[in-house]
Amino acid sequence: MGARKYIGRLQELPTPFYFYDMDLLRSTLATAVSEASRYGYRIHYALKANFDPRIVETIRQAGLGADCVSGNEVRAAIEAGFPAEGIVFAGVGKTDREIEYALGQDIFSFNCESAAEMEAINAVAERMGRRARVALRINPDVDPMTHRYISTGKADNKFGISYTEIDRVIASLKRLSHLEIVGLHFHVGSQIGCMEVFEHLCERVNAIRSWFRERGIVLRHLNMGGGLAVDYENPDREPIPDFAAYFAVFNRRLETEPGQTVHFELGRSLVGQCGDLVTRALYGKTTAARTQVVIVDAGMTDLIRPALYGARHRIENLTSSGKPRTYTVVGPICESSDTFATGIELPETSRGDLLAIRTAGAYGMAMASRYNLRDLPGAVYSDALPTGRQ
Amino acid sequence: MGARKYIGRLQELPTPFYFYDMDLLRSTLATAVSEASRYGYRIHYALKANFDPRIVETIRQAGLGADCVSGNEVRAAIEAGFPAEGIVFAGVGKTDREIEYALGQDIFSFNCESAAEMEAINAVAERMGRRARVALRINPDVDPMTHRYISTGKADNKFGISYTEIDRVIASLKRLSHLEIVGLHFHVGSQIGCMEVFEHLCERVNAIRSWFRERGIVLRHLNMGGGLAVDYENPDREPIPDFAAYFAVFNRRLETEPGQTVHFELGRSLVGQCGDLVTRALYGKTTAARTQVVIVDAGMTDLIRPALYGARHRIENLTSSGKPRTYTVVGPICESSDTFATGIELPETSRGDLLAIRTAGAYGMAMASRYNLRDLPGAVYSDALPTGRQ
Repeated sequence: MGARKYIGRLQELPTPFYFYDMDLLRSTLATAVSEASRYGYRIHYALKANFDPRIVETIRQAGLGADCVSGNEVRAAIEAGFPAEGIVFAGVGKTDREIEYALGQDIFSFNCESAAEMEAINAVAERMGRRARVALRINPDVDPMTHRYISTGKADNKFGISYTEIDRVIASLKRLSHLEIVGLHFHVGSQIGCMEVFEHLCERVNAIRSWFRERGIVLRHLNMGGGLAVDYENPDREPIPDFAAYFAVFNRRLETEPGQTVHFELGRSLVGQCGDLVTRALYGKTTAARTQVVIVDAGMTDLIRPALYGARHRIENLTSSGKPRTYTVVGPICESSDTFATGIELPETSRGDLLAIRTAGAYGMAMASRYNLRDLPGAVYSDALPTGRQ
Repeated sequence: MGARKYIGRLQELPTPFYFYDMDLLRSTLATAVSEASRYGYRIHYALKANFDPRIVETIRQAGLGADCVSGNEVRAAIEAGFPAEGIVFAGVGKTDREIEYALGQDIFSFNCESAAEMEAINAVAERMGRRARVALRINPDVDPMTHRYISTGKADNKFGISYTEIDRVIASLKRLSHLEIVGLHFHVGSQIGCMEVFEHLCERVNAIRSWFRERGIVLRHLNMGGGLAVDYENPDREPIPDFAAYFAVFNRRLETEPGQTVHFELGRSLVGQCGDLVTRALYGKTTAARTQVVIVDAGMTDLIRPALYGARHRIENLTSSGKPRTYTVVGPICESSDTFATGIELPETSRGDLLAIRTAGAYGMAMASRYNLRDLPGAVYSDALPTGRQ
């Protein structure tokens, strides 16, 4: 139920802020780790979902590794105390400086996304007198049989190594003597609620893995990415995603060789539901079209998903028990796109009411900006609340 | 021609960075001010377009006022030395704290966007023993005859006071004794290239102004907003927008009363063309669909307009004179939306080449985020360049 449970102690705090239910975060982590460990699977937390220091610290304590997509994220993981051997570094545009830093830290593996990037990592490693452990990110979308749920098309083209590159990649390995190929990496998308997609991914990976084995390339690990969905519509129906079902798919469908470890990169499914964006109603107005508009003090600068992706987050009024009315909820930013929801039902909402924008733990704070020179939103944690109504 | 003119002195700088052509900025400001002053018009710079301190300082020196949309922007304008009597404060979601600060600074005017906001400003003013100067932002879109180029519909509903509210607003004025109504404010949209839209706006304003006069409400000023377009497709064709034509429309069509001043809020048209986002090509790759992808070191965190609005910025390779090829240009962020352009023509582009993403002076840096924990991009000014190739 998110922030609602703690409303008595939130009411006087300056808004907007992210509220994190740390109990829910810890239960989610415990469930994910326990379900993964049934099969010996390792989970790396995708820092890009939320790099709040307390969230990251809690995840480290739960024993997860880290999935990083920039040099700064690798640095944040190292500084948060993640062991280097649990850190992977992904992303299509690694700079020399980032590669150098990560290599110096002796991280577990680079998820390598192109032939050109392999050359670059090899050159840096050579300069440093090291060998870089590399997992090849293969783009499984090249198969025209790709499951329709897996997003394909131009937009995805930048990710991974395509089949058209793979022969060149394999041929180049002899020359790239400062690389050690230790694994394969896949990531088919995000917010996937249908387990068939992961079944299909397993089949593709089984085929690709065999293809490599036939060429005498031994892979110590398979990284299956992430993508497990959370329920944005009804966050209280399943506050902890069904990790049991998720990992069971891979156990059932993925073929592994002896000694081969299987890794996952989870972000949204771990932290999405534990965060609410708490905001205050500032003004109500009625448009010429008789739309009731509630203007709140959080905006697209605090949570850009609705503006950027058309994402729909459930909104609740935490302080009103009035009779339901239909509202459009907008932020204060001077942009038409700064709209959180249109035509939703809320109890009658007045100036001063506190609203929770639910399921905001992932890609909320992490994407915040200072547009309109706004302050970044604060963070409030359920286990470090002010002790009473002020 | 943007950063290209200075390429010899940019080549060794760490990328990505915003490059600002300060000569172009100064010429643009001089032209705008001189065209406006032919008719006694006042220009306020919309800080939200770019709050880079050197840009803001240059604009202040040119004698413009400031158009602010948050308390922090009002503070930034005050701290940059803008006289309080040249500062307007707009925005649909002003908080009490922001109102209090702006009122304490005795700014020129609040652009007030709803009846509820008027109550709030009046209450703050009463508490402070002051009178707040207020301009009513009227939503001209309520007219079903609205010109088709003016964006209407749900998305715009949050802005301004609609006709359905206006009677209530006028009736409330007697009671709101700490407000002084000094003007009317209009803003019909952004990136408007067709002068007819502004002609239509003038007609609407003439009617609304008369309506107020009939009710005995004297308005000291009219604020016509902004909206003048810049040329994203071909930035070198018209590096300085046609301010002469723009202001001439208002001079020709807008009826004013004796002593009534006319104000404008310009952002994009003043700073859009002076800025380039300069980035380096990191990797090339070919997808299974034979698309040539160039991965650059700038991303949607540095310039979100393509991802957020589908905006198209012209991209140039500053260091190659190879034969033209077709490319998709993407950033390093782990998002499919992190794509700057698809299927554009560039001279053959290789690792290390410098690219300029043009017309990035407005809503570029101002909307930057630290998603993926990336550093914010730097800023380089044409009049403060390193003195030679390093």
